[in-house]
Amino acid sequence: MFALRSIAGPVRAPACAGSRHRCVVVRAEGINPSIRKSEEKVVDMVKVADLPTPKAVYCRCWRSAKFPYCDGAHVKHNKATGDNVGPLVIDSTPAAAPQ
Amino acid sequence: MFALRSIAGPVRAPACAGSRHRCVVVRAEGINPSIRKSEEKVVDMVKVADLPTPKAVYCRCWRSAKFPYCDGAHVKHNKATGDNVGPLVIDSTPAAAPQ
Repeated sequence: MFALRSIAGPVRAPACAGSRHRCVVVRAEGINPSIRKSEEKVVDMVKVADLPTPKAVYCRCWRSAKFPYCDGAHVKHNKATGDNVGPLVIDSTPAAAPQ
Repeated sequence: MFALRSIAGPVRAPACAGSRHRCVVVRAEGINPSIRKSEEKVVDMVKVADLPTPKAVYCRCWRSAKFPYCDGAHVKHNKATGDNVGPLVIDSTPAAAPQ
């Protein structure tokens, strides 16, 4: 669960104007809580020749301790949030030779 | 900004117990708002032989209209949330032959 530390404070959103309820607008903190936050944009470039074989499993949930590789952290994330994210798998197994 | 439609209702978190303030616990809605939500887990498997050349750019922000490929949607997401997510690039350009 994201901590709400960095909310700029409750803001009365248009949807709440005039409503009796106290409305808190939460500014989404994005999807990457902690990976390489000093970088302006986390882009990973991989050469096909450098791909681990036979399969390379890449993280897309931004919670892997082995980022950019997947370590299964999406399972815990999906369970905690009801999300359905999963990895990208690059399969380097050569196609079987025609019989 | 994530809409707060599906919050399970304000829950008094331990951090708020006994405090005068009204504390709303927002259950993170995960990071994938709309891609293939009927699937239990969105996993993409790509064979090296099928990789677009010379470069394949894969989305990791879960907002691309061309998912699993990147369409630059991370720029708007990062700007709106202060996040720093970016794509995974698989480069199929053959290594230059030694001189």
